[in-house]
Amino acid sequence: MPDSASSFNALNYVLTIRLRVQKPSNSLSRALNSISKGGGDVGAIDVVKVGSDHVVRDITVSLRDATHADDIVARLKRVKQVEVVSTTNPILSKHENGKIAVVPKSEVTNNAELAQVYTPGVAQVCSEIHARPQMAFTHTIKGNTVAVISDGSRVLSLGNIGARAAMPVMEGKAMLFKQFAGVDAFPICLDTQDTDEIVRTIINISPAFGAINLEDIASPRCYEIETRLQNALDIPVFHDDQHATAIAVLAAAINACKLVGKPLSTIKLVASGVGAAGLACLKLLMAAGVKNVIGFNLGGAVHRQREDLTEQERWLADRTNEEIFAGTMKEALEGADMFLGLSVGNILKGSDLKAMAKDPIIFALANPVPEVSPEKAAKYARVVATGGSNYPNQINNALVFPGIFRGALKARVPQITEEMKMAAAYALAGVIADQEIHEDYVIPTVFDERVATSIAEAVIKVAAATGAARSECN
Amino acid sequence: MPDSASSFNALNYVLTIRLRVQKPSNSLSRALNSISKGGGDVGAIDVVKVGSDHVVRDITVSLRDATHADDIVARLKRVKQVEVVSTTNPILSKHENGKIAVVPKSEVTNNAELAQVYTPGVAQVCSEIHARPQMAFTHTIKGNTVAVISDGSRVLSLGNIGARAAMPVMEGKAMLFKQFAGVDAFPICLDTQDTDEIVRTIINISPAFGAINLEDIASPRCYEIETRLQNALDIPVFHDDQHATAIAVLAAAINACKLVGKPLSTIKLVASGVGAAGLACLKLLMAAGVKNVIGFNLGGAVHRQREDLTEQERWLADRTNEEIFAGTMKEALEGADMFLGLSVGNILKGSDLKAMAKDPIIFALANPVPEVSPEKAAKYARVVATGGSNYPNQINNALVFPGIFRGALKARVPQITEEMKMAAAYALAGVIADQEIHEDYVIPTVFDERVATSIAEAVIKVAAATGAARSECN
Repeated sequence: MPDSASSFNALNYVLTIRLRVQKPSNSLSRALNSISKGGGDVGAIDVVKVGSDHVVRDITVSLRDATHADDIVARLKRVKQVEVVSTTNPILSKHENGKIAVVPKSEVTNNAELAQVYTPGVAQVCSEIHARPQMAFTHTIKGNTVAVISDGSRVLSLGNIGARAAMPVMEGKAMLFKQFAGVDAFPICLDTQDTDEIVRTIINISPAFGAINLEDIASPRCYEIETRLQNALDIPVFHDDQHATAIAVLAAAINACKLVGKPLSTIKLVASGVGAAGLACLKLLMAAGVKNVIGFNLGGAVHRQREDLTEQERWLADRTNEEIFAGTMKEALEGADMFLGLSVGNILKGSDLKAMAKDPIIFALANPVPEVSPEKAAKYARVVATGGSNYPNQINNALVFPGIFRGALKARVPQITEEMKMAAAYALAGVIADQEIHEDYVIPTVFDERVATSIAEAVIKVAAATGAARSECN
Repeated sequence: MPDSASSFNALNYVLTIRLRVQKPSNSLSRALNSISKGGGDVGAIDVVKVGSDHVVRDITVSLRDATHADDIVARLKRVKQVEVVSTTNPILSKHENGKIAVVPKSEVTNNAELAQVYTPGVAQVCSEIHARPQMAFTHTIKGNTVAVISDGSRVLSLGNIGARAAMPVMEGKAMLFKQFAGVDAFPICLDTQDTDEIVRTIINISPAFGAINLEDIASPRCYEIETRLQNALDIPVFHDDQHATAIAVLAAAINACKLVGKPLSTIKLVASGVGAAGLACLKLLMAAGVKNVIGFNLGGAVHRQREDLTEQERWLADRTNEEIFAGTMKEALEGADMFLGLSVGNILKGSDLKAMAKDPIIFALANPVPEVSPEKAAKYARVVATGGSNYPNQINNALVFPGIFRGALKARVPQITEEMKMAAAYALAGVIADQEIHEDYVIPTVFDERVATSIAEAVIKVAAATGAARSECN
């Protein structure tokens, strides 16, 4: 029986509870005990105020959701000598009024400056761009601005929650674009989930942007949208969930395979989840040399005799599992070198990994609950990576999108090619020197400043070598 | 014969020319003389470097356009003992890489913060917005963000220059939104000029925004787009060229009429230009009490017997010029108290104003060349206002849009009503106390910090009084 989802990693609802605790007494420990008993995870405990007969404290607690929060507060209200003064939600607070701002690069302090940046002087710039449209890249925000666009149809693990509710994710991406790569990014959430409408709308709004980052769009719509936009536009269109994930996975796989001394071309890979992200990972891994792959979807192992496959799964079936293996995932794992999960939480037990080849590599990337508990996997595996920041080796698309767009914008490429993605993966892997690679360090952290720079440089280099660049990069 | 367009106010192309001038000699004065002879207007003269036998100087010159610039440089190259080292364009420089940036409101410095603003913590905010969509106004950028949208079909006086070339204007507006009112605004230029496509595209991208500012869209398309969007969306849609101009004109008219002691209801107004902006001004002036109006379009005086009128001009014909006056503009000006021009430059001579009633009020707002030379109008008129910053009384829509959107966003109104526009005009006029009103001060400058605040407060007050507000405003 797999662990329940709530037993680890799923306490994402954070609440700060202000308590007035009588002293002297064991009332604080009784309060904390009540939280633990209720399934809450106590984090920071801060002192707000010390009175003669009481202390006011802020207790930060990780919980499952709003209902769980109500339950914990009700429990605390029953604890003697403890008063719940107030509750605040630090995550909600952090989102108040949104997370990004649009600011002028210079202040307008007098009429002369106003006449330069606005009418009448601005007319001169408009005229020049009208005469030479490429000047939009150098004299408007286009050259450094990415549209982060979602239709809200597949947001994180939440599913189809729509445009408004998807905004916090897109704003978060815009934050990271700026902080990690100096790229200006603006979130656009679409009030339509019709493929034609989405394509037309994005084409219509494209003049302001130097690149389009598609995000959290359901499959298979995401494939068609990306392909049609890439054909219609002269700027890169990049579905982050597919390609950024694939680049990060390949980078981590390169280093993990180095560590265990197995070339990519020799490993046996079992993949759980062949949706948009899973397939993109397999494509890039295979382009990098991986040959022996068995993919699984809800219907079992993907092979060429199955007739219930999507067009994309068919692509995989035609190229992998020549032996028509049709057993269980546990059976497939026998002798496998690597497991790649981009599916759902808790589908494997630790012991399922027992029959794998020596030095197993486990990438359990389902979020927020991985395919196998990292603690349990660690008993059998040499390398474990997850999508979360609470374990080593976090494989996060935030490692990739800032740098790859920065490179694409700087080189002003019309698209991000397979060659660029491959180069980006090797650049990301290369941030960690061979002698630094370690079981707990096969992928750098998003806070490593070399990450975005290395990836951007790799993209620029490929662009220059292949003649894709439209600008000179210094 | 009216003045030629180049004789005033049209030298909007600014060039900084770096000259290496031999010394001692009169070579600098010969260089300046050559610029003047060529029709350039010399501004700042800066010293860059003093050598033993020469001085390097930067001469900033106002010119008509790029061709004029080439001509002046060619002239300077013929001046002895003067060498043209380089030329730079300060307006173009000011636009390099665009004029606005998208920035995070807080820095992400560790994994705990990353997990709050991005996955997995952000999922909590997404879920709450999904459950309560109004939370988008408080927990995403929606509550304070305006889309500044153009199809590039009628940009300034440049006409239909398209989406890319329109961007610098929209970026300029975004700068002013932030600086004058703290509103985040993002420019969207549309690669379509089809009404249906424009309407659908704006509806599709609306979830991120708290209001839509339409800008530089050609008439009559602009009317239909505004009306359809206002009906489809629950956020304000405001065509700036019409309504912001109208509010600023009414504000200036209120103060000018106070100055000359004539109630609005008694004045005779002659209007040149009944396009989108002109008609919006007349509608608001008439709503404020003006009764006696004669409007002119290219076909002459607008009256109800004409059969060549657009639907919008017909609106005016049905309500004004009951005497079916069909003479010239000069004839119409006989006995008129006010002239309002939103048409083209140099259609009137100063002496055309001679027959106006006592204390004429002249608003000559064509840009960059007013309908009548302000210097010449001043001989006959009591109050002269233009659209430019090089004369007193600049009537600029930048006086209006920051404040009116700030008020609309704060009160979270679903639309900006006629009542709000009227209140905004009176608030703008009221920034100048009665005893301060002066021939050269009927409208405040955009740099007066009271402007946006007063307008925003007026909008919020109307919203509260009419029950239009959806948020409590403190």
